[in-house]
Amino acid sequence: MNRKKPTVFRRSSCAIANTLDLVGDKWSLLVIRDMLHGKKTYGELLDSPEGIPTNILADRLKRLEEAGVIVSAAYQERPVRYAYTLSEKGTALGDILLGLVRWGKTHIPGTRTLKGSAAGSAPKAQTRRPAFRRKRTTGAA
Amino acid sequence: MNRKKPTVFRRSSCAIANTLDLVGDKWSLLVIRDMLHGKKTYGELLDSPEGIPTNILADRLKRLEEAGVIVSAAYQERPVRYAYTLSEKGTALGDILLGLVRWGKTHIPGTRTLKGSAAGSAPKAQTRRPAFRRKRTTGAA
Repeated sequence: MNRKKPTVFRRSSCAIANTLDLVGDKWSLLVIRDMLHGKKTYGELLDSPEGIPTNILADRLKRLEEAGVIVSAAYQERPVRYAYTLSEKGTALGDILLGLVRWGKTHIPGTRTLKGSAAGSAPKAQTRRPAFRRKRTTGAA
Repeated sequence: MNRKKPTVFRRSSCAIANTLDLVGDKWSLLVIRDMLHGKKTYGELLDSPEGIPTNILADRLKRLEEAGVIVSAAYQERPVRYAYTLSEKGTALGDILLGLVRWGKTHIPGTRTLKGSAAGSAPKAQTRRPAFRRKRTTGAA
């Protein structure tokens, strides 16, 4: 799209390779998933069903913020605490998550759409967007 | 979908987490990209614009085959050489790649759709499927 800046690419100019350089790991997109589900604070994000290690969460939040995918803002002073929200760029990652959900549910037996912060509830198939609406469920985790 | 086998999940039953356990790294989906572009042999796959290290390629091919995403068949004896093709399950990963391409082209300036084995040609926007049809271009890499 935008070719004004002669960007120096880490591996190639391939859009897939560059997107993977940012979110091609086992955790970044899970943090994005949880933020699409409405989680905002470090504590909420740490409380994932996958048990993200605290140092990995801190690292990913830093990298995602540097990439403009998330935005942080202090919501409390002494001690300072930050709330994280997705930028438009970050929200747009929802389409990739939808692809991952669909593939997983079709090809990995027993997997399901994780809704809200509850692990493993809501077995119903999702339509285009609602999978990432904030929707707290009652049971589990 | 299929809940017959009580699968033991590595992290959670979330379809996203489990798909990332398989392809959540910087290389697996690039190997799949190249196979969707028609590459079949180890040598062809090694010759990627990103310069995948040979040990990583060998590891990813092994893992993807164990997961039923790709299938190998000997096409030559003495020395034995294998050709790799995508299973239906592997071909279905194309939807995730399409999401990555679209996001990258929109949000990472200068990135583009990589067609065939040529690095960085074909700047045209892609439609639903054709991005991963075998289409060799003339220039570059």
